[in-house]
Amino acid sequence: MNQLGQQGKRAARQLAQLTTAEKNEYLFQLAADLETATASILQANQQDLDQATANGIPEPMIDRMRLTENRIKEMAAGVRQVAGLPDPIGNVEKMWQTEDQLMVGRQAVPLGVIGIIFESRPNVTTDAASLCFKSGNAVILRGGKEAFYSNQALVNLMQQTLKNRKLDTGMIQFVSDTAHEIASDMMRLTEYLDVLIPRGGAGLIQRVKNSATVPVIETGTGNNHVYVDSYAQLEMAKEIVVNAKAQRPSVCNAIETLLVHEDIAPQFLPLIEQALTEKSVELRADQQALNDLETATLASEADWSTEFLDYILAVKVVASIDEAIEHINRYNSKHSEAIITDNYQNGQRFLKEVDAAAVYINASTRFTDGFKFGFGAEIGISTQKLHARGPMGLEHLTSMKYIVYGNGQIRE
Amino acid sequence: MNQLGQQGKRAARQLAQLTTAEKNEYLFQLAADLETATASILQANQQDLDQATANGIPEPMIDRMRLTENRIKEMAAGVRQVAGLPDPIGNVEKMWQTEDQLMVGRQAVPLGVIGIIFESRPNVTTDAASLCFKSGNAVILRGGKEAFYSNQALVNLMQQTLKNRKLDTGMIQFVSDTAHEIASDMMRLTEYLDVLIPRGGAGLIQRVKNSATVPVIETGTGNNHVYVDSYAQLEMAKEIVVNAKAQRPSVCNAIETLLVHEDIAPQFLPLIEQALTEKSVELRADQQALNDLETATLASEADWSTEFLDYILAVKVVASIDEAIEHINRYNSKHSEAIITDNYQNGQRFLKEVDAAAVYINASTRFTDGFKFGFGAEIGISTQKLHARGPMGLEHLTSMKYIVYGNGQIRE
Repeated sequence: MNQLGQQGKRAARQLAQLTTAEKNEYLFQLAADLETATASILQANQQDLDQATANGIPEPMIDRMRLTENRIKEMAAGVRQVAGLPDPIGNVEKMWQTEDQLMVGRQAVPLGVIGIIFESRPNVTTDAASLCFKSGNAVILRGGKEAFYSNQALVNLMQQTLKNRKLDTGMIQFVSDTAHEIASDMMRLTEYLDVLIPRGGAGLIQRVKNSATVPVIETGTGNNHVYVDSYAQLEMAKEIVVNAKAQRPSVCNAIETLLVHEDIAPQFLPLIEQALTEKSVELRADQQALNDLETATLASEADWSTEFLDYILAVKVVASIDEAIEHINRYNSKHSEAIITDNYQNGQRFLKEVDAAAVYINASTRFTDGFKFGFGAEIGISTQKLHARGPMGLEHLTSMKYIVYGNGQIRE
Repeated sequence: MNQLGQQGKRAARQLAQLTTAEKNEYLFQLAADLETATASILQANQQDLDQATANGIPEPMIDRMRLTENRIKEMAAGVRQVAGLPDPIGNVEKMWQTEDQLMVGRQAVPLGVIGIIFESRPNVTTDAASLCFKSGNAVILRGGKEAFYSNQALVNLMQQTLKNRKLDTGMIQFVSDTAHEIASDMMRLTEYLDVLIPRGGAGLIQRVKNSATVPVIETGTGNNHVYVDSYAQLEMAKEIVVNAKAQRPSVCNAIETLLVHEDIAPQFLPLIEQALTEKSVELRADQQALNDLETATLASEADWSTEFLDYILAVKVVASIDEAIEHINRYNSKHSEAIITDNYQNGQRFLKEVDAAAVYINASTRFTDGFKFGFGAEIGISTQKLHARGPMGLEHLTSMKYIVYGNGQIRE
């Protein structure tokens, strides 16, 4: 790990000095090389798939690991898209003159070396590497052992493209030892890693959070809620709840709990039950909600804090917006929260008092996404408060420096 | 520690909802209460001083711990100054409409609960607490055992003022157990602490960096350089070097090493030697610089990476700006770096290629300071790249949330 760190640090210096054109040329070349190498990438991927099948890995997980000609085309398209984004490096966000007549500017610079620890999906490899590269950062990738051969083939390809362009291969590196201790070493590589971004399930995030001394950006866990206020338009509420729960339940911006104001519960619950049943969503309700539901079972205490990532929704009736906000702030993972209401005061209170990366009035939580927010890309969704919160695009992979123009000033 | 954490979390919610006026009223009251309680604070301080004397602590350290009527007045003035600063909370830095016609705004919110681990100077107590309070954050303070009685008296007072105003005393808390293990517990209190800011010497910073799993903002170590280019105005260079080294050597924005281009070394070194000798600065020079210096001794390898914080300056002659930049990027602590030159290209290269929080052309590094940069306050100077870099004012004690106004949008 120390050697990867040293190489990363050295390469990061070179990378920070590349022009936007040089970075884009590399990325366009990489996209072309990815497509050219389709056959050999698929071959490496097949090794992973064979092993997974032999190990009895369930089919949905195998599917997430599977690469196809089409998926590789999509990966290449993703790399080209990153090349097309504006380069955040070098921007001076503001500049001002101090009392001492110094001109001080705040300029975006790369973070340095970014570590990414991720699980099964091999497309993360090119996705994360191209975002780090475009933002001037060296990257050290550590994927799960299930997709080892795929990840290795992809990183080898990215390094070959670096070599062909006379760039330091330390810019994009791969941890080829999948032992747990190596991941632990990586989490404590404070001398070389400027930040560590884990991408994966709650177990991985928790492990990193508990062990890492390298600064971490937590991503991805979303125990999210929709609160249907007594002033909600019920038809709109129904559409939003169905979308937020069932359009794609496995993602972090889907919801896990529905809160309904007691005044409208008798009308709304049967309505939403029918709509969700059509989508095969199982309901787990509190005692009061059960009164107005036919197919639901009784929710346990654990259900309020569980990120199901599945066709399961916890349902609770609340007596007031205060109770809704309190419940949310107690159980949520500070990701995405929505209120459905036509009441101005309640909407404003929800935005102000709910603690989350994204808070919505009258829209689905599924919009918490770098592309949907207009950032053009996304390396993850931060659920912590330091550095970046919510969807992270290229600008969130930067740090800053103060550039100061003087004329002989000394301090009295 | 867990109890302090829980109380802090609960109080942080109340604090985040206070209006600017309510926060300012508290701070003005606190300033008045500080002055009223001068006698009892001095009494507590005397206990620390007596113990320090008994333990044979050197006088300069005792002086840093000493409070006087005047110093307490200054502390109160500092609290009033923070009250007078604009409140960063609630500001929406930008708002835009997405393709889905959502209005998305990026709003400043408090970080939550901030832990501060600091050493001897008791004025940090009110200083840090008032900055955290104004930015809507609960704070847990852990001071050094040398100033225990002073710190405890100050926190008791701040809590009494909270009580008198019916505010939760969890907003400003004190770790009254000075055992090392308690500090370690605090560094791993990820469930309750949103960030940890150590303020003190390099030993403390290193200990926190190696042990903390709570997100840390590193502050304060400054192994800084001035590079006098061959195109420098020598008189200006002399003034700046003397200021950066000798105006106040004990602070983190002072310099530790002088780099001089070989073309001007024979002229500049005798000039600077005379000026620095007048200020009692000891010079430790490389072999080449020794040729043009009379009183200097030979520098050791360790001198290049040492933050002397004293009247000592390492001196090295370099053959080019490249060598200067390479030396700086190898040894510096990424704090503050300056070039003295009238050459446009060299100035621009220095700004671009030197990796530091603040990079200067033709000015003293002593300006790296929240007050001098115009932030109106400073909780520390970050030498890390995540979240905040350089002087940190109130805005750097905030996080953000996305507030999203919809009209029934769902994701296709």
